[in-house]
Amino acid sequence: MKRIITISREFGSGGRELGKRLSDELELPVYDHEIIEILAEEKKLAPEYVGSFSEKSFPLQYAATIANRFSVSYPVSSQQLRLISDQEKLIRKLAEHDCIIVGRAADVLLSGENPFNIFVYADMKSKINRCLERAKPDENLSEGALKSKIKKIARERADYHALFSDSPWGRKESYTLCVNTSGCEIKNLAPALAKYIESWFEARK
Amino acid sequence: MKRIITISREFGSGGRELGKRLSDELELPVYDHEIIEILAEEKKLAPEYVGSFSEKSFPLQYAATIANRFSVSYPVSSQQLRLISDQEKLIRKLAEHDCIIVGRAADVLLSGENPFNIFVYADMKSKINRCLERAKPDENLSEGALKSKIKKIARERADYHALFSDSPWGRKESYTLCVNTSGCEIKNLAPALAKYIESWFEARK
Repeated sequence: MKRIITISREFGSGGRELGKRLSDELELPVYDHEIIEILAEEKKLAPEYVGSFSEKSFPLQYAATIANRFSVSYPVSSQQLRLISDQEKLIRKLAEHDCIIVGRAADVLLSGENPFNIFVYADMKSKINRCLERAKPDENLSEGALKSKIKKIARERADYHALFSDSPWGRKESYTLCVNTSGCEIKNLAPALAKYIESWFEARK
Repeated sequence: MKRIITISREFGSGGRELGKRLSDELELPVYDHEIIEILAEEKKLAPEYVGSFSEKSFPLQYAATIANRFSVSYPVSSQQLRLISDQEKLIRKLAEHDCIIVGRAADVLLSGENPFNIFVYADMKSKINRCLERAKPDENLSEGALKSKIKKIARERADYHALFSDSPWGRKESYTLCVNTSGCEIKNLAPALAKYIESWFEARK
């Protein structure tokens, strides 16, 4: 059975680190920011430009174009629409082989693969602390500014997810396991989590 | 560090079995139905009577009596109110030592112990199948009747939980781990889950 793992995550909860650590534990490739880099390379575009559409809020009309219900009446360039579509194709292509994909609505896009869908979350204090620990020396973000950023990114991810699914981003019923990382170091949780994921795939053989 | 594990669970999702299996894996006592039996024995009451108040819907006025805001204006006997209060005391007493407690709002009652709170859930089809597999030969419950029963018990548990907490029963933010058991045998998941719980307690030492 193919082993596809998707990781949805709140900003600051350690989802990216969990992806890397599960990749080491399970010996599977992980695609997170790499998706932006591959797309930028393929399309000869700046990674920053691609990144600005990779998992951001987007006019909900795009969902309608997918359903072919009515045409886009929003000032969105065809290149921007194509990028989202290209990202979707790339995710499906990557998932032809066992892998871990972080974010970008992969849980919905790959539902036909029967993936192990993780949602990683934490309380606000833990998320702020995690961001502060990892901030660059010149960032100087206040706790208030970080809180706003965390909330803004949550809204963007929820909006992006809504392009592909009626089930809200973060609703536990859509995930195989919801992991609260509050007060925990990801490195201490990853090995046992990898074992759990292996058991789950074994159990469904 | 004390190891208290609470298991909240949707009816039919395998929470009771998970409690027993984690008890074996972690060598900790588990209290589920046992709570009713201990209370019935202490109070010299029929277990069936005690069980009818142990985790059921209950006039929300009880919450107000806890807060001492106003008196009860509901036809509830003092014995019934005392039973809920006695159950709360018993749960706190059991949690003086490492243990696993299933249901009965233990996640809220024991929040001061920094417990590992699990929420076990599954899709409706899996819950119905699980109930059918475990039904007594003379039960003869239709799928429709089972679905109604599953929904009714969910409402009762949510109501009972609301006596003690403003955070809704099943809201993932209140739990350390939310485990979706759809399509899985609990026995295949329990060993790795026990390892994850051990890691979590280690990580928080």
